[in-house]
Parts: sequence; C-alpha cells; structure tokens
Amino acid sequence: MKSYYMALPWIARNTSGIITETFKTIGKFSKLKKNTVVLSQERLFDKYVYVESGLLGQTTNDVSLKKPSIMGLIPPGRMFGPTPIARKAVSITNFYAMRESTVYIVRQDDLLRYMEDKPAVKEEFLLATISRLHTHIEKFAVAAMLTPKERLQLFFKVILISYEIDLAAKWLRLPVNLSIIEFSNIVYTTEQMLAKIFMQWKKDGLLKREGRYTIINKNLLETLDWSGNEVAFYDK
Amino acid sequence: MKSYYMALPWIARNTSGIITETFKTIGKFSKLKKNTVVLSQERLFDKYVYVESGLLGQTTNDVSLKKPSIMGLIPPGRMFGPTPIARKAVSITNFYAMRESTVYIVRQDDLLRYMEDKPAVKEEFLLATISRLHTHIEKFAVAAMLTPKERLQLFFKVILISYEIDLAAKWLRLPVNLSIIEFSNIVYTTEQMLAKIFMQWKKDGLLKREGRYTIINKNLLETLDWSGNEVAFYDK
Repeated sequence: MKSYYMALPWIARNTSGIITETFKTIGKFSKLKKNTVVLSQERLFDKYVYVESGLLGQTTNDVSLKKPSIMGLIPPGRMFGPTPIARKAVSITNFYAMRESTVYIVRQDDLLRYMEDKPAVKEEFLLATISRLHTHIEKFAVAAMLTPKERLQLFFKVILISYEIDLAAKWLRLPVNLSIIEFSNIVYTTEQMLAKIFMQWKKDGLLKREGRYTIINKNLLETLDWSGNEVAFYDK
Repeated sequence: MKSYYMALPWIARNTSGIITETFKTIGKFSKLKKNTVVLSQERLFDKYVYVESGLLGQTTNDVSLKKPSIMGLIPPGRMFGPTPIARKAVSITNFYAMRESTVYIVRQDDLLRYMEDKPAVKEEFLLATISRLHTHIEKFAVAAMLTPKERLQLFFKVILISYEIDLAAKWLRLPVNLSIIEFSNIVYTTEQMLAKIFMQWKKDGLLKREGRYTIINKNLLETLDWSGNEVAFYDK
C-alpha cells in the first residue's frame, strides 16, 4: 500500500527553540513520578506541557490500560496543549507519565498573555499544535489501514527516527524499553497477537530481546512499504 | 464503547459568515462537472475551496475508487485548504466533485495577502482548518475503533446532523443519494459487507430504499452508543 504522511504517527516532531525557550521562561518546572496523570479526559484542557526528560503517554483509555487503547508517545523535546487560539476546550484523552519525567507546565491564560505581542511565538505554538494533530491523524489512519504486523514495523521506524537513531546499523536497539502491554496499546492490538508476531520474528532472526530492550534487525524496516519518511517534516 | 468527539467524523462543521464572505469577495466562482478533480494527491496544496452547492469528496485513493478508501464528504457551506500559516505543503489526498457542484476558489497567496491586516479573518480560517483536522482524526479513529455496522450507523447520524435534519421523525431520509460503492468508501468496508448489513436491516424493518435514496428508521440511531453530538462543536 502507498500512504502519505505529513507527520509521523504516534510521535510528534521536535518543537523549535522558540517553544522550548518559552517554556523555560514562563513555565513551572515539575518532576513527575511514573503513572502521574498530568491531564485527564473530560477535564478542561487549559495548560501546555513540555517534556524535558522521561516519557509521557497520551491515551484514550484510563491509565490502568486494561484494554487496548490507541496510545501516542510524548518523548523529550515535545509539547502538548490546546490550540492557542481556540476557545475553552475539553481534553479528549489522558496524558500521563509513562516513566519518571521532568516537564515544564504553562497555564493557557499565562501563555496567551505572554504571546500577545509576540506573533512569532504564537505562530510556532500554532504550527506545533497543527503538527500534533497531523500525528494523531496518522496514528489513527495507520490503526485503520495497516495490519498489526505492519503497524509494529512502522512504529519501530517512527521511534528510531524520533530519537534520531542512525538506521544504518544491522541491529537497532529501540530507545525505550517498552513492555508488551505498552506495545499493545501503541499498535492497538492484543497482547496475544503481539506475542505471536514477536515469536515469529525471533524465529526468523529479525528480532531479539536484551533484558527489557527490543533489538530489531534492519531488514524488518526494509520490508515495509512506507513513504512516510520522505514527506514527514514537510514544512521545514 | 465510549468515545469522545471534538468534531464530527467525515464532515467538517459549517464555516462562519466571515469565511463565506471572504470567498465571495476574493474567490473565483466555478461550476464543476461530476468527477472533476479539484486537487490531486502529491500536488502543491495552494488553494482554498468553498463549496456553495453540490457535493465534493476527499479521498486517499484515486477517483476511480477501485478499492475502499476512507472518504470524507464536503457538502455546501464547508471549505478546505492548507493551514493558512503553514509553509508550502503538498496535498495528501484527492478532492473531487462527487456531484455537479459550484465552488469559490481562492489562491493561497491571494488569501494570505488579503488577511494580512485582518486578524479576525485569519483566526477564522485557522479555526476552520483545525476543526477540519479534528474531523479527519475522528474519521480515522472511527475506522479503527468501530465495526463496519457501527460506522454505518454513526455515518447516518453525522450526515443527518450535518444537513440539519430534524432527528425526531420515525423515518429519516438521508439527504444525499449515495451509491453502495460510495457508502463503502465512506465507511471503509467492502461492498459485500455493506450489502449484508443493509439486507439484515431491511429484514429487521430498520432501513428501506426509495429509488436511490436510503431511508432509515430512527431506532438505528438510538442503538448507537455515541457521545459525539454532545461535545461536537465544542468551541461555539
């Protein structure tokens, strides 16, 4: 299949220097323990969060993750928040710390006031929000249009690209040690289906586990017919 | 299942008066024959289109529609176009006239120049673009998370709401006479699956066809567990 991506699914692109600077100037630094909920579904979406270290997750389910969700990842260098020009909105997803993390948090009112006379800041926040929406579109499009196996291959590629890992090596270690239940939420399939795919790939010499880390063979990426990396980051 | 919608899937909300006015002031009026392609995949996305009458469609496949696509509808009162503040972007989908239509078309450069000293116009176009992105997210989320039967029920509800049809009547005629192949592209399933669902609903007295029109029984909407209509149009 041929697909077109304006953004990578699951993980939004890195934010620009202007955004990082804004968070460090007017944001409140905060340490988050694993599983801390930063924003709950159905609550007023009235703050911006920039991830400095660790890993946050965004999910349509509650954080107990009892059934597969379609989860997005928010690694360091990414932010989330409401559209800077929207009226009051409610969050449709949960945001929580998947790992111990550090973040900067800015209240919506404070950001709006700060950017009032700074059109360049406003524009960067708008572009980051729109880029984030494209990431969601891709995440759901992939969940609808690709098989679990293809989704998993694509996710490997996306997480490697997002963490700026050189794809030239024969064996590639995924930068985050994800559990089977986390994988199942990210690629939106059951743990059983995942176990079956992993087992087959292990047998075929395409995947191995070292402790909690997953190491994949480069061939797993190359059998994927995916044009995403060519058009992602289109507006740079 | 419980879902949350910030926008309706498949069909974006009506644009505001400001947008309609802008198109009528600086746009070029154009009549489109059925199947005219307005914008092709992989071409520069450099124009805004406002639908005045008829019906446009947006699809990831080519317009011959040989295999199921995930199609969106653009009925009168809606517009599409690139993000007004984005750098040059390429269209990832095809836009074409599903029926004979009339539209207003504005080139991106002309719009950007026109809105330079009109922040209210710029804001409305940005909100409309963001709302349109939410519609795509919902469309794909629904394709991933609901069954074909649920998607079809949801689509009935969305098209009735979008055309502002009173849902109180016992029998409701869908405002557009869609073919089976069009239905299959919208709800992303095969014609065979659709025929099977339609046949069952006919047998159960929940659906009938009058000529090319589809008439549905109100009960079909009520068995749907969908919280969308409560939170859609959240920022009005």
